[in-house]
Amino acid sequence: AVLGARKMEDYGRFLALLGSALLVGFVSVVFSLVWVFHYREGLSWDGSPREFNWHPVLIITGFVFIQGIAIIVYRLPWTWKCSKLLMKFIHAGLNTIAMILAIVSMVAVFEFHNARNIPNMYSLHSWIGLTAVIFYSLQLILGFAVFLLPFAPVPLRAALMPIHVYSGLTIFATVIATALMGITEKLIFSLKNPAYSASPPEATFVNCLGLLLVIFGALILWMASRSHWKRPPEKNAKVLQPIGGTPEGTEAESTMTDGSNADKSDLRINSEAARKQNLKLDEAGQRSTM
Amino acid sequence: AVLGARKMEDYGRFLALLGSALLVGFVSVVFSLVWVFHYREGLSWDGSPREFNWHPVLIITGFVFIQGIAIIVYRLPWTWKCSKLLMKFIHAGLNTIAMILAIVSMVAVFEFHNARNIPNMYSLHSWIGLTAVIFYSLQLILGFAVFLLPFAPVPLRAALMPIHVYSGLTIFATVIATALMGITEKLIFSLKNPAYSASPPEATFVNCLGLLLVIFGALILWMASRSHWKRPPEKNAKVLQPIGGTPEGTEAESTMTDGSNADKSDLRINSEAARKQNLKLDEAGQRSTM
Repeated sequence: AVLGARKMEDYGRFLALLGSALLVGFVSVVFSLVWVFHYREGLSWDGSPREFNWHPVLIITGFVFIQGIAIIVYRLPWTWKCSKLLMKFIHAGLNTIAMILAIVSMVAVFEFHNARNIPNMYSLHSWIGLTAVIFYSLQLILGFAVFLLPFAPVPLRAALMPIHVYSGLTIFATVIATALMGITEKLIFSLKNPAYSASPPEATFVNCLGLLLVIFGALILWMASRSHWKRPPEKNAKVLQPIGGTPEGTEAESTMTDGSNADKSDLRINSEAARKQNLKLDEAGQRSTM
Repeated sequence: AVLGARKMEDYGRFLALLGSALLVGFVSVVFSLVWVFHYREGLSWDGSPREFNWHPVLIITGFVFIQGIAIIVYRLPWTWKCSKLLMKFIHAGLNTIAMILAIVSMVAVFEFHNARNIPNMYSLHSWIGLTAVIFYSLQLILGFAVFLLPFAPVPLRAALMPIHVYSGLTIFATVIATALMGITEKLIFSLKNPAYSASPPEATFVNCLGLLLVIFGALILWMASRSHWKRPPEKNAKVLQPIGGTPEGTEAESTMTDGSNADKSDLRINSEAARKQNLKLDEAGQRSTM
């Protein structure tokens, strides 16, 4: 009963964090729309500043909000009864949408720059932003090839999973850092008379948007890095069996697939005894959650 | 013998990463000096732009480089024979130096702004930067009170450790993001004729500095988040025993103290059998390192 109560308490904590992340992410998207419609020229696709405005809206919607959700989608407890394969498709699908929106948002800036004879790719924002999009695309292609297609052997999957998780979280953090640089650039360039330094309402409003992005990133990173909130390993794994993979191997892989820093601690979940010990330790771990 | 060879290979990998991090961090500091001495006005403390120039130099030296080293100081294998208490003092000491340099570097900007009647605290860079310094100071005070002073009971230490680790890494990432915003601001404000958009040598050079900071951050985060590179738990812990703490409790705490995402997986290292299993799994984990 005490164990059950603790589980519920922890579940409530997870829901509170998830609700906060969804709220902060949603409000960020709304803020980006208010920014471009209320303070700026609105949206269109004609080489004008209205085309540029797609850039912050699509980046915040896709590359921040949707990417953040994609990162924690394995953590949602009500998806644990769904097959792992389905969850992998959702994870990959959300990341694909985010990548497409990021690429379209870059096209918007290039077209705007070209229409105005503004040079491309001179700023640190553009250097790091393009690098992040390239790494994000590579991560998506490699993740698809290794973890979704049934060809990669289990040891390769196990070896690449910690790198996949680390790269994903690092790219996500870099994307948020790049968004903050972009906000800084745009406010300096577009606020003249009164300037950014005079703190007109737009400056304060968009600074708050920047703070929201940092809070969203911090919430997602917390949820993604708590190992006791990971999808539990499946007994009868319904994932695509890698060619030549044994059921035990698949289970090990399936355990690795949903986690951050999933290395030795996960490989250990093999025997039923270890699984029971793990349950007990999950309880112990809960005390160290908040 | 195979086990020993793997251990050596992993040790070599750690040294290569450590060497890379030290090199990238050191080159970043050199770049900040070249920036202010070669491209800018140099350093002094007189309210002029030369006083402002202390800001990037001290932030990159203290708040990025020294903070990064402080984060991974428990990972250095040759310190594992030193007492945990000594390592805690080094960790706290490096972070204290970083905090002092960060505060001095902020004073330099405020004095420069005041001498020129430039408003303070209007930019997103300043909002997030000040927030980071405040959280960093709180983290240092709380860490000192809970993990260094001998008063906190073991369950409290165990409960706060994952938060300490998460906060530390999140603040570190935020500091680097803030530095990138600062570079963006400074290049836009100080490059006129040719402007930043014309990519003069200074722009390209300082963009490269920004890239180096991202690489440094990524290296530190990788080293800090590999659980098999953590300081091993001590058999005869020479740490200050928390009042009322049992040796077993202290051991658990001491395991928790040096790691990221250290929760259930560490609590498990109790029996000698588990320790041996852990050793074996360390080996398995090594294959998933790079």
